[in-house]
Amino acid sequence: MTDYQRMLLTGAAGALGTQLRKSGTRLGKIVRLSARKPCENLEPHEEDFPADLSDFDAVSKAVEGCDAIIHMGGQGLEAPWNTILNANIVGSYNIYEAARQHGVKRIVYASSVHAIGFYERTETIDGNVPTRPDSLYGVSKTFVENLGRYYFDKFGIETVSLRIGSSFPEPTDRRHLITWLSYRDCRQLVEKSLSAERVGFMVAYGMSNNSRAFWDNRTAASLGYKPEDSADDYADKVFGKTKQGDPNDPAVRFQGGSFAAAGHYEDEKK
Amino acid sequence: MTDYQRMLLTGAAGALGTQLRKSGTRLGKIVRLSARKPCENLEPHEEDFPADLSDFDAVSKAVEGCDAIIHMGGQGLEAPWNTILNANIVGSYNIYEAARQHGVKRIVYASSVHAIGFYERTETIDGNVPTRPDSLYGVSKTFVENLGRYYFDKFGIETVSLRIGSSFPEPTDRRHLITWLSYRDCRQLVEKSLSAERVGFMVAYGMSNNSRAFWDNRTAASLGYKPEDSADDYADKVFGKTKQGDPNDPAVRFQGGSFAAAGHYEDEKK
Amino acid sequence: MTDYQRMLLTGAAGALGTQLRKSGTRLGKIVRLSARKPCENLEPHEEDFPADLSDFDAVSKAVEGCDAIIHMGGQGLEAPWNTILNANIVGSYNIYEAARQHGVKRIVYASSVHAIGFYERTETIDGNVPTRPDSLYGVSKTFVENLGRYYFDKFGIETVSLRIGSSFPEPTDRRHLITWLSYRDCRQLVEKSLSAERVGFMVAYGMSNNSRAFWDNRTAASLGYKPEDSADDYADKVFGKTKQGDPNDPAVRFQGGSFAAAGHYEDEKK
Amino acid sequence: MTDYQRMLLTGAAGALGTQLRKSGTRLGKIVRLSARKPCENLEPHEEDFPADLSDFDAVSKAVEGCDAIIHMGGQGLEAPWNTILNANIVGSYNIYEAARQHGVKRIVYASSVHAIGFYERTETIDGNVPTRPDSLYGVSKTFVENLGRYYFDKFGIETVSLRIGSSFPEPTDRRHLITWLSYRDCRQLVEKSLSAERVGFMVAYGMSNNSRAFWDNRTAASLGYKPEDSADDYADKVFGKTKQGDPNDPAVRFQGGSFAAAGHYEDEKK
Amino acid sequence: MTDYQRMLLTGAAGALGTQLRKSGTRLGKIVRLSARKPCENLEPHEEDFPADLSDFDAVSKAVEGCDAIIHMGGQGLEAPWNTILNANIVGSYNIYEAARQHGVKRIVYASSVHAIGFYERTETIDGNVPTRPDSLYGVSKTFVENLGRYYFDKFGIETVSLRIGSSFPEPTDRRHLITWLSYRDCRQLVEKSLSAERVGFMVAYGMSNNSRAFWDNRTAASLGYKPEDSADDYADKVFGKTKQGDPNDPAVRFQGGSFAAAGHYEDEKK
Amino acid sequence: MTDYQRMLLTGAAGALGTQLRKSGTRLGKIVRLSARKPCENLEPHEEDFPADLSDFDAVSKAVEGCDAIIHMGGQGLEAPWNTILNANIVGSYNIYEAARQHGVKRIVYASSVHAIGFYERTETIDGNVPTRPDSLYGVSKTFVENLGRYYFDKFGIETVSLRIGSSFPEPTDRRHLITWLSYRDCRQLVEKSLSAERVGFMVAYGMSNNSRAFWDNRTAASLGYKPEDSADDYADKVFGKTKQGDPNDPAVRFQGGSFAAAGHYEDEKK
Repeated sequence: MTDYQRMLLTGAAGALGTQLRKSGTRLGKIVRLSARKPCENLEPHEEDFPADLSDFDAVSKAVEGCDAIIHMGGQGLEAPWNTILNANIVGSYNIYEAARQHGVKRIVYASSVHAIGFYERTETIDGNVPTRPDSLYGVSKTFVENLGRYYFDKFGIETVSLRIGSSFPEPTDRRHLITWLSYRDCRQLVEKSLSAERVGFMVAYGMSNNSRAFWDNRTAASLGYKPEDSADDYADKVFGKTKQGDPNDPAVRFQGGSFAAAGHYEDEKK
Repeated sequence: MTDYQRMLLTGAAGALGTQLRKSGTRLGKIVRLSARKPCENLEPHEEDFPADLSDFDAVSKAVEGCDAIIHMGGQGLEAPWNTILNANIVGSYNIYEAARQHGVKRIVYASSVHAIGFYERTETIDGNVPTRPDSLYGVSKTFVENLGRYYFDKFGIETVSLRIGSSFPEPTDRRHLITWLSYRDCRQLVEKSLSAERVGFMVAYGMSNNSRAFWDNRTAASLGYKPEDSADDYADKVFGKTKQGDPNDPAVRFQGGSFAAAGHYEDEKK
Repeated sequence: MTDYQRMLLTGAAGALGTQLRKSGTRLGKIVRLSARKPCENLEPHEEDFPADLSDFDAVSKAVEGCDAIIHMGGQGLEAPWNTILNANIVGSYNIYEAARQHGVKRIVYASSVHAIGFYERTETIDGNVPTRPDSLYGVSKTFVENLGRYYFDKFGIETVSLRIGSSFPEPTDRRHLITWLSYRDCRQLVEKSLSAERVGFMVAYGMSNNSRAFWDNRTAASLGYKPEDSADDYADKVFGKTKQGDPNDPAVRFQGGSFAAAGHYEDEKK
Repeated sequence: MTDYQRMLLTGAAGALGTQLRKSGTRLGKIVRLSARKPCENLEPHEEDFPADLSDFDAVSKAVEGCDAIIHMGGQGLEAPWNTILNANIVGSYNIYEAARQHGVKRIVYASSVHAIGFYERTETIDGNVPTRPDSLYGVSKTFVENLGRYYFDKFGIETVSLRIGSSFPEPTDRRHLITWLSYRDCRQLVEKSLSAERVGFMVAYGMSNNSRAFWDNRTAASLGYKPEDSADDYADKVFGKTKQGDPNDPAVRFQGGSFAAAGHYEDEKK
Repeated sequence: MTDYQRMLLTGAAGALGTQLRKSGTRLGKIVRLSARKPCENLEPHEEDFPADLSDFDAVSKAVEGCDAIIHMGGQGLEAPWNTILNANIVGSYNIYEAARQHGVKRIVYASSVHAIGFYERTETIDGNVPTRPDSLYGVSKTFVENLGRYYFDKFGIETVSLRIGSSFPEPTDRRHLITWLSYRDCRQLVEKSLSAERVGFMVAYGMSNNSRAFWDNRTAASLGYKPEDSADDYADKVFGKTKQGDPNDPAVRFQGGSFAAAGHYEDEKK
Repeated sequence: MTDYQRMLLTGAAGALGTQLRKSGTRLGKIVRLSARKPCENLEPHEEDFPADLSDFDAVSKAVEGCDAIIHMGGQGLEAPWNTILNANIVGSYNIYEAARQHGVKRIVYASSVHAIGFYERTETIDGNVPTRPDSLYGVSKTFVENLGRYYFDKFGIETVSLRIGSSFPEPTDRRHLITWLSYRDCRQLVEKSLSAERVGFMVAYGMSNNSRAFWDNRTAASLGYKPEDSADDYADKVFGKTKQGDPNDPAVRFQGGSFAAAGHYEDEKK
């Protein structure tokens, strides 16, 4: 469905990266996989290109020859500052700057609910509200969104920033009933982000067709995204296995869930 | 689905109260019924507790031991001021103040379209627009909504205020095609209002899946409410039996219908 | 479904006019057809009344005796100024002024995406945003919308202005996947615009149930419009036959498509 | 400046009532004073008409013959529910209903910051935000605003609801630097509310020209209100005499100040 | 202050045109005057160029050689349709199309309060609200605004559309206290509209520093416009000479005043 | 005016830092100066504490014992990524994290117009619009704003983020007429940011009383900020010395001026 000649997929060995490989040539004629370590079980349309995101030269070589990037790589959970700094801040700068130098046209970025995790569950928000990160991880996501905005406004590189909720095999707690993104819908959302003709800099939320949504996801719809799954189908199961939370627990009150409730990472680990 | 130990249902003998009894233990382990007169045909999980809402001591006893309240009681149509005053204003104050004294956590309140009945049909509104009541009855509904807001902001008692449209067995006029709430959907909406983990103070509209809606009902969706019925299924029947109204008739022009068109109650009755 | 005694359909010989004739008596007991030339194959409920829209007297006679008008006539594409002026500006003034003189109650007007064609595809807009026409044709559409607003505010004649996207047998390019309005949905939308009890002056978008929509079409929903078709069903076919456009091409960037990309009409024709 | 023949001033013996008497015939040709007890030192244009607001017949007699009302009477601070109920809820209903029966055209009502006292100081709000009362007193103010809205929408009686901040001789704490309304400005605001030709139902904030305002007071400006005083002139004095508050103290955090911080009235008094 | 070489001033013989001539070379090095008849008392920097706006060739010659236009010409009050059509619709099209052909960079257009005259006085509006014309004259103003929007979006010709309130020597009725624009402020507003470096397509309101304003005039401020006069200075005089209007009179209720209250022009003249 | 015991001023040797030292004890009882090199001419209430912002331990020692911070330090113009990274991203993280560890209550941060530099001049924005940085420098400012938001939402450390326009001795180009912040007003704005009782996380714009403002600066007003200077006083001088810019030049079109117009920093320097 896309006309991309060579797609770079970072984080190719991660959970979502592995799922996205299933999209095959719907991502691009050739899909260049990149992770810290070599990827396995390459398909004919795949090529492997391990790189450390914090190493600009390595990133630049990985980007060279690609016309689009799915940037799933980096640190995917709260972590010490230096990890966040190198993996997500420096790493994503390297991706964008290499993209500029090599003429990449579009980037699909795995942002996160944690970029806006301090909104309350009872607030319906869209992609234009001020960001309210719930963790250093979340702060790094807002950094990359601003970077994407800048590279579009100045250099014309388009970005779809997908604020992914909870992408797991199935919802296992009551908050997931709101934020769940099935793997199948995740693949569709990335594919549609690539094939839409004009995206500019766009923020869309990564969730399935969950009726409990606290997100106004019109931008995703405008990409042609039609989720096929719904957390609603798991509601009875989840309700049966879990207790109703305390509405005053920050993990219940805020969209970011346990991230919003956690203390400072390094204090917590002591 | 809820973890409430004892649910107080006021107005238990009314049309909606009777419907809600069908939800059974989905409301709470024990459902305490309250109306002016004793209720009949008690189920094992039900207990009867008649009380006059305008009598604080009686209300306090009815509330004691409950952890949540479905407040359907009071005067349900336009009436002389003293009736509205005692049944809806004093009565609802009694409910909220007793709830505070006895540690109730959540109240689901039967508010009404008549709290916003002077918006025009051609306006799409959500729960945050300024209220525009169409009757003293409607004014009393806005009073209780403000009371609920206050008790949440100050004392942390959560409220879902359901602005119910037209909850009847089926739609019988063209305005009902917009405002109808089936009994089944009404039950679901109340159940979801109880089981959602965090509601704060929330206003949601009580309507089925009617395509002609003039309400943006995102808050209801965020509770997990997925209406199963639609007034659309009755459109042909209703169109066949009724004539197209005059768009300048206040009963057609305004969301409140005949309430907005009516004169002063006591003048009308002369 | 409507109670209109005699409906005037202008542009009755055009593509949409021809489709609308299929609605038959759902438009009115008698449907008076008007085009520059006589219409053919009249049904028993139809009467033919050819008229040149730019001739006030002819229009006045055509309007006389009608209680509602579906105004599809005029110039339907970009054209030299004098054509736009006479067919759309003078012609529509004649319709509205004749309507006033003869007591017409409601007008359904075929406005166009080209009234707002300079919004970007990535913007979701509703009917209240400032107009941004992409052509003199589009400017003429905004003129008629203002005329309709004026005749309602001052004289109480109701108008539904339908900003029609792309009404063709099926979508043939990627932009159509966003803007397509099937003939069947077009008929329904006009019928619902007539049968809704109160419309005031309303702008609604004419599109089918296309997930890629850049329009917030709540007003259409409030009329009871439930599209039965979707451009999504043609997506694979269209993707297969077309290439991904350049996001910086004005025809891709803007909602108006090729109209926004075109130069000045008469320069282009040289 | 106004053309009113006879103006009823309720609460004429209170602090603001006493100030408003200084406006003299700028309020009306005759100013009828009403308080629970007789007023003193009547001017030639004044007449005294003591009445208990909770007594409809007394209120009706006081209203008879007046064409406008300045409604300053009732309970002016938090109080037990029964006091609030009788003085503010029943009392104001009596005013509005008597106004309807006797053809009064306009009412200027002394509402309060406490109708929206649970907004944070850091939020800028206008008169259209949902009310968030900080006390039963504040709830009663929202009741009267809804009553005023209703009597305008249905019966055409105009109201300006003035949400008065802190009207004292001078600001004495840091919150007053935001909310202060000088007596002189209070008089002007009431006079302008009376002389504006069209007010419909309008909410305006009662504050002087304080730069620290958290209110968008365009509606007051549209009445022609140009405050002559400013709390800014007292800033040095107030800063010198007071300490910087704790930003997490509810009395500092919320617009309602100590009202928002107080517990339940009757609990507090124990 | 501007760098324009030759400024075309249409309507140069009208009331505002005559005032604007006083701005002299602040408008441009040479000011080309255009009216239906020759202008008198030319200054050295002025040249006279009479033209009928409805004659494209005459307009084209008048525009040739100019780099900016102040378009004050046309019909300035309600009139029969044909007058409005030729003077304002055809005439303004001629101005814009000639501007395009001759490379004009910026147009300052005398739009009017009557483009939005059906908003109520109690509504505060800015330049982005949907237009609500109160007359055919007002409809023609909205036509030219859309034309200006189109010529900017497509051809890059900038426009400041000034919705002028009431520009007279002094305010003489109570509505003027809201809408008055002194001649001095009118000149300043036009000068600032010319000298601002970037205006795109902008709508600004033409009023002096009147505290009763129902317009949010930020766009005018952003041009550097600082009104020196205020209708407030005439308030006592106007109040003394006029009576308080009936709030239900359309001339009082709506922003357009008597235009909103008038019936159809030609009916009125019978 | 503030009750702070010890205020840390970073960037104390820079242009704004030097100006802020003139505020003396209005900042705090003791003002601890910090820059890369020792500061000169210490006043009795000042203490010197040189530190490299990118060195956490040095920052931590500088912060220890302070209850508030004015964070003016770091890189103040576009620079190579590594400079931005260390001075602004790592440096500001160090400030915030040290503040958390040492119990600092409030931070006033020197953000910049370049955080939103890609808005057009013709857009009026407030502090809640999505950020649109015009440079890597601007991206770093948005990073710190998100960091401040996070440290407030999670740890309760208040921040006022001042998006400073152009703080120079006087305006020297036409864009400065919009964005100028006099040194005197800069000092006042920082002082008011410190003395306001509750700021939460707040964005305010740093500009003097310039009529050409494209910023809605209500938040600054709510702090009590009343600018004493205005770029307007320099308008004639600036207009006399400069030419009208080309509206299509990005330096004219965008709020960020030359930053928005510049290419990539390192390309430019080649």
